[in-house]
Amino acid sequence: MLLEQLSQRAIAVRLDDVPEDALTTARFAILDTIGVTLAGASEPCTAIAGRALGATGRGAASLFGRAARVAPLDAATINGTASHALDFDDCSNSMGGHPSAPVVPALWAIAEQDGAGGAVVLEAYVAGVEVETKIARAVNFHHYEKGWHPTATLGTFGAAAACAKLMQLEAPAFTNALAIACSMASGLKANFGTMTKPFHVGQCARNGLYSALLAREGMSANPAAMEDPQGFLMVFNGEGKFDAARMIDEFAAPYDLVEPGIAFKRHPCCASTHPAIDALLRITAEHDLKASDIAAIRSWTHPRRLRHTNRPNPQSGLDGKFSVQYVLARAALDGSVRLDHFDDAAVHDRQVRAFMARIVAEPHPESVMESTEHFFAEVEVTTTSGETLRAYVDRPLGRDRAHPLPPGALETKFRDCAAPVIAEDAVHAIEAAILSLEDQVDIRAIGDVMRDGLRHAEPRRAAFG
Amino acid sequence: MLLEQLSQRAIAVRLDDVPEDALTTARFAILDTIGVTLAGASEPCTAIAGRALGATGRGAASLFGRAARVAPLDAATINGTASHALDFDDCSNSMGGHPSAPVVPALWAIAEQDGAGGAVVLEAYVAGVEVETKIARAVNFHHYEKGWHPTATLGTFGAAAACAKLMQLEAPAFTNALAIACSMASGLKANFGTMTKPFHVGQCARNGLYSALLAREGMSANPAAMEDPQGFLMVFNGEGKFDAARMIDEFAAPYDLVEPGIAFKRHPCCASTHPAIDALLRITAEHDLKASDIAAIRSWTHPRRLRHTNRPNPQSGLDGKFSVQYVLARAALDGSVRLDHFDDAAVHDRQVRAFMARIVAEPHPESVMESTEHFFAEVEVTTTSGETLRAYVDRPLGRDRAHPLPPGALETKFRDCAAPVIAEDAVHAIEAAILSLEDQVDIRAIGDVMRDGLRHAEPRRAAFG
Repeated sequence: MLLEQLSQRAIAVRLDDVPEDALTTARFAILDTIGVTLAGASEPCTAIAGRALGATGRGAASLFGRAARVAPLDAATINGTASHALDFDDCSNSMGGHPSAPVVPALWAIAEQDGAGGAVVLEAYVAGVEVETKIARAVNFHHYEKGWHPTATLGTFGAAAACAKLMQLEAPAFTNALAIACSMASGLKANFGTMTKPFHVGQCARNGLYSALLAREGMSANPAAMEDPQGFLMVFNGEGKFDAARMIDEFAAPYDLVEPGIAFKRHPCCASTHPAIDALLRITAEHDLKASDIAAIRSWTHPRRLRHTNRPNPQSGLDGKFSVQYVLARAALDGSVRLDHFDDAAVHDRQVRAFMARIVAEPHPESVMESTEHFFAEVEVTTTSGETLRAYVDRPLGRDRAHPLPPGALETKFRDCAAPVIAEDAVHAIEAAILSLEDQVDIRAIGDVMRDGLRHAEPRRAAFG
Repeated sequence: MLLEQLSQRAIAVRLDDVPEDALTTARFAILDTIGVTLAGASEPCTAIAGRALGATGRGAASLFGRAARVAPLDAATINGTASHALDFDDCSNSMGGHPSAPVVPALWAIAEQDGAGGAVVLEAYVAGVEVETKIARAVNFHHYEKGWHPTATLGTFGAAAACAKLMQLEAPAFTNALAIACSMASGLKANFGTMTKPFHVGQCARNGLYSALLAREGMSANPAAMEDPQGFLMVFNGEGKFDAARMIDEFAAPYDLVEPGIAFKRHPCCASTHPAIDALLRITAEHDLKASDIAAIRSWTHPRRLRHTNRPNPQSGLDGKFSVQYVLARAALDGSVRLDHFDDAAVHDRQVRAFMARIVAEPHPESVMESTEHFFAEVEVTTTSGETLRAYVDRPLGRDRAHPLPPGALETKFRDCAAPVIAEDAVHAIEAAILSLEDQVDIRAIGDVMRDGLRHAEPRRAAFG
């Protein structure tokens, strides 16, 4: 039976056998997820999910960015919602969605309750992502196109597998956890563009964790719930719409963390602006330019991308996220595009508005309308000394293995995400701990550092209740 | 938009306008649900759902059959699982499932937290059942046949609507509750025959309640999530597989509680044995026979039904549930078939085994193999005075409006379900309160009676944590 085979393979994952390449990606993905969760902790959807739960500070699991610790299932819901609140979390081309946001909040919650070590957490993360992405290969992209939100539906399995792995469930219970997950998966793309989208992630993280807890306590389920005529493959996907063997045959061969890898979002703004930012940053880095060295910037992107990003006069932070002129000015002036650039006040900064006068954005004359290759950008900088410098980027950096992020970019992003919430020393300590996760004896220490470093003190009993 | 229209209609439900027929059914359905929940409270699946939650006695919502009160979402999960644990709860032909088990546990939990009166609860129950059964008419029976567990998927909407109604949400928030429910519905028939089946009901009751709580707190969702190309109708059901207008056009016209009505299960054993029990009880009632007046019983049923119920020598309680000989002996000796007849020891009772020698079960000679009318039974009793008495039942009593239960049958069933858990005086007080639900000023009083009447004292803080 498929879920039995999948469980056996997930149980067989051993940190020592996982390629270092996969582990590097895993550590960065966990760091990145914690970062975007801290940044999303103050979003309204996160607070709403918590208040509706009536979550109280009586548990063992950290709320990222808050003083309280709550019950693990509540932490999975609230942190899961926060992790996707800004849509700034990592992506998987296999899933057509986000691999880490469902897994890390569920896994972290139960790991804190159980006092697990970092090596076990890292191993469970690898197993969880491998399960969800390999199920994804069996059902995509029909699954995505049909209208399911794969981050939520497939993420339920990722979270269940990661938690079952952390709990060291044996094959029968591990299988039951995945079979129960078959009956909990949900989430519709109809709710995209609303708060319910990030909430899907909280709900699937919680459901995945609950599946594993139920299986541990002895809940029975049908081990054939994946391939049963009334099981996940047929009911969620449909006859002829899946290739079940792929979830077994391609398991860890290679790990999805290696091929196709995980995509990281570098800039906290509309993805259509990313290639132009990357091109400009390449020029300024290679030629060691300061903003004062720049006389003019011209940016050319595909007209399909320019249509919604040609905003020379943004009026709000949200508007600024879609203004290629604004984000290029910020990249030139500040060396990176940061979360605090999208406060409503920040887009009216006089120095930035003055610099934006030097920027022109136009459709690239060689754009092919029918092409799916429309994520490129060409940028030209004219320096105050009269030099003309050009760079071309065919895809946003971080999107795939052929376009790696520059060294240090993910650390910078993490610090940017964590800085408003946590003091600098604590941010560095957390970053160091996650990037050497397998050396951490007890991951609860990381939560302690996070709470001790909170910039805004609040009572530890307070949550949302 | 469909969910807006559905919400407006649910909001417009007023107790004064609901036909007395529907209210009578509603009161009995709530009583019956509480009864089967009390009976299911001690089932392993219920305890597992509670332990996995780590539910602690720190909330406002009653756990039926337990001393502790827990958080409303936990109560919905645990009581919801208990309500379906024995598969003894009521049925709806529109749903192809169980209408009250998803609604009552969710509704009761939030009503206790809010200190609601009985009239509001009764009104919310009517609205919740109307919403889920009318959505059912739009998607069934394709929805059922495809492999969804409609009690779980559609019950999510019933629970959401009942809770939104109780909270008096206005149309925009009410609509959001149902739109969020679109993204929480789940439950596969692949998991039938396992503990996960009753757990589906706990999960959907919880999710329905959580949908309403989220909407009350301000979570946004897509009001078109029902008819969106990537919404509930298309994704869960598929192009051409639904008739969306029915959920609006047939709303309260008439109420589903009136037509087709709700089916109640009278006997706690295999449904294939029910017609024979009903036929025997009709003979013994009409002729005022005691077991000692009976020399022989012959039962004829459809061979498709007899195949798994012809068990002249049952060895366990579960075996007894499928033995037509055993259940007929119990009906003759005890006047009804009760839950305690299915303790393992009860099937070995010497008096019963002796009486079973007088019973013969055979295939009905006029059975048509192809027919779907295979739920009939004919029973013949030969009295000790040599008289021959016959009765024919074409369907189990309680299945539809043409086959009503005899007066008092549901009260008897409730007492039978509650008796092992709650002392007799309290059972009668609860029964009286539910059957005059709209006169109860604060339904929390019913929970107090239930806790005070518990046969087995336990600490009120103890739950499963």
